This record gives sequence, C-alpha cells and structure tokens, in this order.
Amino acid sequence: MSITQDPYAQRFGCTFIEGGGVTSARGFTAAGVHAGFKADPAKLDLALVVADEPCAAAGVFTRNVFCAAPVQVCRERLNESGDASASYGTARAVVVNSGGANAATGEPGRAAAREEARIVGAAVGCPEDEVLMASTGVIGVHLPLDPFRTGVPAALEAARTLSAAEGGASAARAIMTTDTHPKECAVTFTGDGVGYDGVTFTVGGMAKGSGMIMPNMATMIAVITTDAPVAAPHLHAALKRAVDVSFNKITVDSDTSTNDSCFCLASGAAARTEAAADASAEAACGSASPVSPASPALQPFDPESPAFARFQDALMQVCTALARAMATDGEGATRLVTVNVRGAASGADADAAARTVANSPLVKTAIYGHDANWGRVAAALGRSGARFAQEDADIDILGLPVCRAGLTVPFDEDEALARFEAPEVVIDADLHAGSAAATVWTCDFSHEYVSINGDYRS
Amino acid sequence: MSITQDPYAQRFGCTFIEGGGVTSARGFTAAGVHAGFKADPAKLDLALVVADEPCAAAGVFTRNVFCAAPVQVCRERLNESGDASASYGTARAVVVNSGGANAATGEPGRAAAREEARIVGAAVGCPEDEVLMASTGVIGVHLPLDPFRTGVPAALEAARTLSAAEGGASAARAIMTTDTHPKECAVTFTGDGVGYDGVTFTVGGMAKGSGMIMPNMATMIAVITTDAPVAAPHLHAALKRAVDVSFNKITVDSDTSTNDSCFCLASGAAARTEAAADASAEAACGSASPVSPASPALQPFDPESPAFARFQDALMQVCTALARAMATDGEGATRLVTVNVRGAASGADADAAARTVANSPLVKTAIYGHDANWGRVAAALGRSGARFAQEDADIDILGLPVCRAGLTVPFDEDEALARFEAPEVVIDADLHAGSAAATVWTCDFSHEYVSINGDYRS
Repeated sequence: MSITQDPYAQRFGCTFIEGGGVTSARGFTAAGVHAGFKADPAKLDLALVVADEPCAAAGVFTRNVFCAAPVQVCRERLNESGDASASYGTARAVVVNSGGANAATGEPGRAAAREEARIVGAAVGCPEDEVLMASTGVIGVHLPLDPFRTGVPAALEAARTLSAAEGGASAARAIMTTDTHPKECAVTFTGDGVGYDGVTFTVGGMAKGSGMIMPNMATMIAVITTDAPVAAPHLHAALKRAVDVSFNKITVDSDTSTNDSCFCLASGAAARTEAAADASAEAACGSASPVSPASPALQPFDPESPAFARFQDALMQVCTALARAMATDGEGATRLVTVNVRGAASGADADAAARTVANSPLVKTAIYGHDANWGRVAAALGRSGARFAQEDADIDILGLPVCRAGLTVPFDEDEALARFEAPEVVIDADLHAGSAAATVWTCDFSHEYVSINGDYRS
Repeated sequence: MSITQDPYAQRFGCTFIEGGGVTSARGFTAAGVHAGFKADPAKLDLALVVADEPCAAAGVFTRNVFCAAPVQVCRERLNESGDASASYGTARAVVVNSGGANAATGEPGRAAAREEARIVGAAVGCPEDEVLMASTGVIGVHLPLDPFRTGVPAALEAARTLSAAEGGASAARAIMTTDTHPKECAVTFTGDGVGYDGVTFTVGGMAKGSGMIMPNMATMIAVITTDAPVAAPHLHAALKRAVDVSFNKITVDSDTSTNDSCFCLASGAAARTEAAADASAEAACGSASPVSPASPALQPFDPESPAFARFQDALMQVCTALARAMATDGEGATRLVTVNVRGAASGADADAAARTVANSPLVKTAIYGHDANWGRVAAALGRSGARFAQEDADIDILGLPVCRAGLTVPFDEDEALARFEAPEVVIDADLHAGSAAATVWTCDFSHEYVSINGDYRS
C-alpha cells in the first residue's frame, strides 16, 4: 500500500503530492549525507532540514523518564511557554543523526548536543538556540562530534545543489535505522473561501521508526514542515492533536522509547498562486527570483478559523500516513494490524481497550498464524480496564462477525483464511458502553521478531 | 529447580513436605480421572477435591470482564460477605475439568455449571451449593455434561481407593492443559508457643497454568487446602494477601484470563500430635480409626494472633512456590525471569515498574538471546509510570551492575554469558525514589512461543 493511497489518511480530505516530503512546503531545504556515525559509507546517517528564515517551531517528545540528551536540550530550547510539556518556540534548522542515540550519556551528552547545534548554527548562519536536534541508535554510547564537523557542511552543500525532492528524499534515508524504506509524504490544501484566496498551503514530512522493535529500542523521529502561517503556540496545539491520534496510536509493546521526537516548523512562506505565476513570469524574463520578495507576509491563522481547521486536517493526514507506514514496516512483520474500538464509556477506556488488544502477543501471534480466534481479543478487552459488560460486546475480525453479545458467532473458516491474505488486518470491537472510540495500529508477531531481538548467540 | 527447593518460597520459613499436595492437610481426599473432555484417553481431565466435612472456603477470581460461567457461579456461592470482590463461604468439594473453559457460553453455560455441581453434590452427599467448580480449555464451546455423570463417580471411587498422595497427584495431573508437569506442594507449621501446643498444621495445594500463554489463553487454577482452623472471612483475607504477592505477580503478557480461579478450603481438622499418637496406638490395637473422633475441635485462629501469622506465612510459601513453578513452565520458555524493583515511591509504582519490565517482549527476547543490554530494561522502567529520575536509577542483571545513576557501567561480557546459563535470570532495579518494592516473575520469549501461538497454517 503506497503511502499516498493510505485510506485512513485520505479521510482527512487533502491532496497528496506524489513524491512529496519535508521540502515540499515553501521555505525549506534538506539533505542527507554519510557523516561517519555508521560504519558503512553507503549508509546515510546525518540529515539536515534548514529553513530560509526563522520559523515558528513545535516539538512533541517522549515522556519516558530515561529521555536522551537531544530531547532534554530541545525542551530547553522550545521553552517559550515555560511548560516542559508544551514545547514550542523558534527554530531555523533540525539536525538528525542515526548511528547513535546520545542517551544515558549524562552531562557530557547534553554538552555534545549543544556543540552539535553550535556547529550547525555556524554553518547555517543562525543562533545555536535556533537549532533542534534528534538522535537515534545505541543507548549509552557517547556521540562523536567530528562527523558533525565534516558532515554538516557537506549536508548544507548537498541541500543547495540537489533538487528539493532529491534533497528531501536523501534526508528521509539518512534518518533510517532498520526501516526497510524511507517514509515521507506531503499534502496540499487551499485557502480559497477561508480568507486566503488563491493560496495553496503545503504540509509535508519525513519519519523513521518501525512498528517492530529494533535490536536496541524503537525510536520514532518525525520532522514536519509547512508553509502555512501558524504562530508557535497554535502550531504546538495542532501538532499535539495530530501526534495523539497518529504516532501515539502505533504500538508494538512500547509506546515510547528514550528518543522519540516529532518536530514541526512553519515558515509561513506559502505564496498566492497569482504571485507565484507573476514570479515565474519575472524569472522567465530573468528579472527576479522565483520566490517573489514582494509577496506580502500572510496573516497567521486564527486558531478558531476554518483555515486553521484545514491546516489541522492536513497535519493529521501527513502524520497518519507516516505513522501507519511505520507500523507496517516492522522487521519480521507480515502485516499491519488495525484495532478499532467503539462504544466505549470514555476516550481513555477506548484507548486502553484498543491498546491492550494491540499490545497482546497472543493476538499478534494469532494474526501471524492466520487465526481468527476471537477469544484472545476478548481476553485483552476484558483485562484492559475499559468498563463494559461481556454480554454487550461485539467483535469482528477482517469484517467477519465472530462475537455478538459476548457469545461465539460461527464463521466460514475458508472465508477467514482468504481474508487473511490482505496486507491489513482489521479488528473491530463495539463495547456498547458509551460512544467513545479509538484506533490503534500495530503489526503481527513472527519468528523473525524473536530472531532479530533475541540476537541469539548460541 | 525442584518446587521444594525454591529459594523465594523458602524465605517464609515453613517446612516443605516431600511429595506434598492438595491431600496433605487432614480432612481432604482427591483424585483425577479421564472423563472424556479430552479426546485422548491417556489424558486425565477431571479432578475432584472432597472434604470430609463442610469447610470454610475462600476464592479469588479473575477480574476480566469476560469471566467464565464457573467463575460467575462460584462468586454467587461464596457470597457470605455480599461483596463480589470478597468471595467466601462454605464448601465441601471442588471440581475442576480441563478440555473446555465453559466461557462465553451465556446462560446455558451457567446452567451447565450448576448441573455439574448437582452431579457432584449427589455423588458426594452434600448440598449442590457447597460445590465449587473451575474449568479450563477452549472458549466459546459449550461444556458437555455426560463426562461429569460418569467421571465424578469414578473420581470419587479413585479418591477412596488411592493413597492420599496418589490421589492428590492424579488430581494435579487432571487439571493440566499444556503444563509440562503437575505442580503441587505442601508445607507444615506448628502451633507450639502460639496457643496450639503439640499441633502440626498443614497447607498444601495444586495449580495449573504456565507462564507461557496457551494456544487459547493462559488460565490459572489453584486449589489450596489446609487443616488449620480459620473462619471464612479471615481465610479470604489471607488468601487474597497470598495471591497478591504470588499468582498475581506472574505475568507474560496478560495478568488475567477469563477463567483464573484460586480456591482455599480450611477443614480445621489438624490433630494434636499426642492425640494422633494415641489414635495410632488405638488403631494398632484395632479399636478406633486413625482420626480420633475424640479430638476436640480446634479454636479458629484469631486473625491478629501469631498463630494466624504463621498460617499466613505457610499460605504465602505454598502460593509462591506454585506461582514460580508456573512462571518457569512456559512452553518454549528457557528460563524463569525474576524482576525485583526497590526504592519506588509507592507500592503501585514498584509493581508498575516491575510489571512493565516483565511484560516487555524486548526484555524477554534479550534474555532468550543471552543479552545483558540494560537499555531495554531502562526503557521499560521509564515508560512504566513509576516516578523517578533517570540519574537515580541503578540496574543489575544476574547480579552484575550494568547501570549506575542512569549511566552505563562496563561489565565483563564473558562473565555475563556464563551467568546466563542459570535457570533463573534476576533483574534488579533501584529507583531511589522511595522505599517500596515489588517482585514480578515471568519467563523468556522464544521462537517456540511464536510457533505454538501462531499455529502457523502455511
């Protein structure tokens, strides 16, 4: 399933850009290079996303008590609110390295993260405080700084010379650890009829992390860019909402590692299509740059406005597509698993119920084995803490009713086996205890998983 | 590790009886037979434990919303308190069948459970309300009653003819599903110096269930018997305390299935050693039964008394030994894993921290792979919800310090590999956030686990 055809993402109604990514929005360049964090020179391991101008920036980070140095430093930087759980401020660049998590490295680790930012700031020409960072890889090992000293200038040069699409794609590859393919996408929405007539806005991004746990630990990193004009506090609110229903709804066994980071930068540089047309005409005559300096700055979106609502949808669409792509891409995973719970007494109940099913090794091995036995789903729902009566519960697997009112419903075993060929297995549960709903994504559990994570040294 | 040599159980200080089980306490007989719930006639599938007289009885059951018919009926019967979460009353017999869980069977299932009790009551000669029942096996399939009609009389006959030890052992085998061996044990403690001079009390029991999830679901069933004189409300309180630190501290991925049941019956029939000696002498002369009818009934233990405290310890010892035997006996499991957390801010924090580590597939596959990488343990602690600062955390694996103050401690890899040969892997974590502690037991995650539970039908 291609990321642009993802049915859950498409529900938000924006238009996917084919081949879109973190450089699709106006005002951003990016590139990925091999800097030396990874041994293999064929593997890119340093990504840089640079904004033409300082941007409103927001971050959502792991809540794991063992949080890594880059997360700690980013929280300090995005501290305009004074509230460590609402990280936003101003940023100009995001630097991501793979091949080392800079976690459990104490004060030297934090110093290294700040030095990393100084190097980027000097190369880009911005204050070091406007540089955000993320790292992914082995825990407990100190992050070498020399690769930044050579890699950052190389990445900056690549960002200037590569096309926007090539640069974004190389950045998406550079943040991978055991992902089997890069994850990036972008969508557009218009300002027509909501106060920004003729303007096309773009939201795009890249992510790494796979639904299957890595040999060390799952780390999720996402960098989202937009050219919509959104002030930092509202950007954070929108990002948090999007993360809560996308990245925070993927689970295998752990909801959060030590390094999980999601950034969003807003340049506000979206252009009116007429101005863009004018600028193109001028460029054809050789008289002005394609980005017309005469475009008036766009008024930031009022958070109560329909324009903001469209932006929220676009952000949801990008995050959902990236998150589901992550859940599908598990080492050893054979398919994406979607758990929908509805009829719960509260949002927390719905989430607990869906998450308990999605976290259950019993359910996930059953799916691997193409087994539609609903008893394991029921046992997971029943211990989740969600409030409901067993005689009110209905369960469907792959669209086949298997339980009604808490009792078995006979189903066609051959039909079930045939449906198990689908790349996505959907489990639906209705608790008939209220009206809250939640969806959680995971992947199945295979022998591969044990092989990879057991690292068996027999 | 033999159950009687279990170091955690031995800490409670009572004396194990070699080959002890559910018939070691005075006043109980038991047997297991093949009744026909399982297809293979070589497999026992019906167990009966019968008390000579009505007993104080207590039960602790699954809190899973999808609770099975036998659990519902037992809660109704042990309803002296009027409180569904404190099940106690009077009982004369416990009947357990394997080969069918009688879960998700609705009203017909409850009717079957009551009919099962009527059959046993008629055979034993007691009111049906004094019969408790448990079932284990496939969910959603109705429980046939004919096997009870033929099997219960056969079990009663076997209980009369077999020796106490043989009867108890056959009962322990009859409740097994995929356990690789029966689990039973018994301990003694004396009443010397605590108001019951010369009396030896016994607590014994049998359990089924393994730390590894079964093809359908893990069900834990335990039947504990004692000849100590304990009134039903205090018996329940003691049982609950023992279950909370034993059976409820084993986890693989699910803390509770639809059928989990733990029963304790107290006959009060322990004899003074002098009277027993007298009775034996009389029996040798052919004049009286070995159980002297002239023994005065023992005064029930005052719940605040030292005698009751000894009983509590004995119950803890039996439950701990059985629980750890279950955690070790996982299909595919290669070893028992013990997670000790101390220095937590509260009991709930300690339990959450230990349980999150014990439930983590990342940790469990690492153990399977003999990998002492502590990062996965840290990530689990960090997301558990327990309150602590990462720079205060210490972690040891197999007695080797691997993390101090949140930072890596280098360790001897060869020493670690050598220690991984032990049958029990111990993980210790100190959060330095308080003084609460908890211990949770689990087992490792292997390829076998996936094979068994994936039931791969390729």
